[in-house]
Amino acid sequence: MKPLKVALLGCGVVGSQVIRLLHEQAGDLAARVGAPLELAGVAVRRLGRKRDVEVDPALLTTDAEALVARDDVDIVIEVIGGIEPARTLIVSALRGGKSVVTANKALLAEDGATLHEAARAGNGDLYFEASVAGAIPLLRPLRESLAGDHVKRVLGIVNGTTNYILDKMDSTGASFTDALEEAQTLGYAEADPTADVEGFDAAAKAAILAGLAFHSRVTAAEVHREGITEITATDVASAKAMGYVIKLLAICARSDDGRSFGVRVHPAMIPRSHPLAGVREAYNAVFVEAESAGQLMFYGKGAGGAPTASAVLGDLVAVARNRLAGARGPEESTYASLPAHPMGETVTRCHVALDVADKPGVLARVAELFAKHDVSIQTVRQEGHGDDAQLVIVTHRATDAALTATMEGLRELDIVRAVASVMRVEGDE
Amino acid sequence: MKPLKVALLGCGVVGSQVIRLLHEQAGDLAARVGAPLELAGVAVRRLGRKRDVEVDPALLTTDAEALVARDDVDIVIEVIGGIEPARTLIVSALRGGKSVVTANKALLAEDGATLHEAARAGNGDLYFEASVAGAIPLLRPLRESLAGDHVKRVLGIVNGTTNYILDKMDSTGASFTDALEEAQTLGYAEADPTADVEGFDAAAKAAILAGLAFHSRVTAAEVHREGITEITATDVASAKAMGYVIKLLAICARSDDGRSFGVRVHPAMIPRSHPLAGVREAYNAVFVEAESAGQLMFYGKGAGGAPTASAVLGDLVAVARNRLAGARGPEESTYASLPAHPMGETVTRCHVALDVADKPGVLARVAELFAKHDVSIQTVRQEGHGDDAQLVIVTHRATDAALTATMEGLRELDIVRAVASVMRVEGDE
Repeated sequence: MKPLKVALLGCGVVGSQVIRLLHEQAGDLAARVGAPLELAGVAVRRLGRKRDVEVDPALLTTDAEALVARDDVDIVIEVIGGIEPARTLIVSALRGGKSVVTANKALLAEDGATLHEAARAGNGDLYFEASVAGAIPLLRPLRESLAGDHVKRVLGIVNGTTNYILDKMDSTGASFTDALEEAQTLGYAEADPTADVEGFDAAAKAAILAGLAFHSRVTAAEVHREGITEITATDVASAKAMGYVIKLLAICARSDDGRSFGVRVHPAMIPRSHPLAGVREAYNAVFVEAESAGQLMFYGKGAGGAPTASAVLGDLVAVARNRLAGARGPEESTYASLPAHPMGETVTRCHVALDVADKPGVLARVAELFAKHDVSIQTVRQEGHGDDAQLVIVTHRATDAALTATMEGLRELDIVRAVASVMRVEGDE
Repeated sequence: MKPLKVALLGCGVVGSQVIRLLHEQAGDLAARVGAPLELAGVAVRRLGRKRDVEVDPALLTTDAEALVARDDVDIVIEVIGGIEPARTLIVSALRGGKSVVTANKALLAEDGATLHEAARAGNGDLYFEASVAGAIPLLRPLRESLAGDHVKRVLGIVNGTTNYILDKMDSTGASFTDALEEAQTLGYAEADPTADVEGFDAAAKAAILAGLAFHSRVTAAEVHREGITEITATDVASAKAMGYVIKLLAICARSDDGRSFGVRVHPAMIPRSHPLAGVREAYNAVFVEAESAGQLMFYGKGAGGAPTASAVLGDLVAVARNRLAGARGPEESTYASLPAHPMGETVTRCHVALDVADKPGVLARVAELFAKHDVSIQTVRQEGHGDDAQLVIVTHRATDAALTATMEGLRELDIVRAVASVMRVEGDE
């Protein structure tokens, strides 16, 4: 059987694992595909660099454009990341009739439409399982296994770096800064951690998940995004005292009338009894709630060289089989064309801690303000006395707009000395 | 676009949900497939029966053979269950060039080879996601997402009935008989519960999982099978006291040298901190451990009309897309042809409670016997005194043959009054 030729763009943490596995598992991969897979070339930025894997120097090139344009290349694997030159290279490969496997969440979330359009034009496949939640099979289940169901909600931990930081803060009482530093030392966080801690990485993944879940086109710009940089050790400790844990969640949820959806990334308190609360260190886990299937959960390693390479190679086997059969996998599905609604329309719950004057009538005035905004209170508790008096309130479900308006009102009340903390609550009620 | 015609075999709990969803989601399904799906006929045993769903009487037939032979039928969904007539009907449909979606674990595990052979002969698809773990996308991830990885182990709770019973025994202290009765009252267990409580259902699923995980052909007859009927309230209570919970597990594990695998279903003690310990009521959850991906977990509803129908419809969309594209999904993959090794070669651990004479030298003689069989002891603890003295021993990993020989030896020791309980331990070390 004639081998299928694979071009690899990028030879970093993931790329080097892909090369290792292509070599070590050559026999199995050939048996599963129905033809051998042959590495045709590896595009890198610098030729002389030391790498984690041995690569035949004859395969290395700095001319990625020439590599993806080669007539003998069947499949291109892109693990460079970032928008350019990745986009130009992927589009060029797809238009040239090649199939592409990519792990590039940022690009898919910014301009997936252009990539899918190029795949259609070239009649090739565009697979991207590795772009969300690393090794966890999640996109294929959403795209295919649940193709006969209606997904209502996707809720998960999709960024390992922030989960590592929040987990450390929760288990050791560390501050954000100390936990981040530890994550950097251990290689869980990058030198510039912005993409992770400000929620950009999770927002890109949320956009991809929402698009698949709701058969619509979603970009990262439509995702409401809040990071974890302002979470304090005190926030974590008070959550803990109340039986909650703070996690950075990506949440995609259809509205009750089914005509729109919300997509957001923000820290939230979840009950310790919730299965997501037990997701430790840099692991990822995602809940999917569908009308017929009910609640499903997927759990595993969301990042790292070998886990991500596992997802890349799974896609590689699929697109290689498709090429041999002269077929294509499922295309982008955007027929529903639902709009993302603004964050204000999202229904959520809030945990609020208020520093208040300790005198009669305070609770009545606070409660009146909540009522004015149609936000109903689930529990209220007073802690401390005198100058330390604090009211801790957990609301029932309300729109984010009503909750925000309530918080603004609270800040203006003379009896409220400060709104000490506000955090959304997910995962119960 | 010309509709694709679907024949449904069986209109019970699952079949009626399939009909409901085909109707309610007709627009979405057509958009996702690329052509409408039309119900061509429903084969039932008796025409007049009251059903959970409204069906056009003109579609009902008792002649299943004629239905699957119809030239205008493209896809057959089989949800009758059991070996015959399901096998004859599926083979006839596949040989006739139709694609088949089935939830029939018993048939796949007894004679999957015949079905796959028929699919090849007719150039159609055979999809069976619903046969294992209901709504949980598990077979597609194993067949496709992990196609570039090496699965080392699959370990899970794949039978909801027995999990419900064991969970009740654990949470209320009920006896097996009482818990079974409650499960029957609530519809979680059938009037004749043999297939569930004796582990036949889980064994069929284990055979299917092992086949996919190890790219080999595996039948239910090769699965070592033990049920839960002999688990007592005392077993459950002592497991609880030690921080363990008893679950019926299906375990497929490659041997260390990679040349064979073990496949087994039996009750086992797992630590309460293990994620599978938290799987309550009739839920299912499956761990998959792969070389590159690491540990993955899949969780959800393992049975029930709507969840199973979700999996059936996911497969239906996939095979319908394949037919429109003139393509086939991944075929049976058995190239590795690994043999299942006998239970004796399986490496596991044991928890043993021994009623012993309370006198000096007892532990030495017991320990000597373990050593003789090369079984090393992890912990030993004496409980009670005099006539109530009990030694509770947890071993390190050893072959099941060595553990069995040790248990036999213990029964012959004069200082051992009785081997009060023996149970395998999984999920740690």
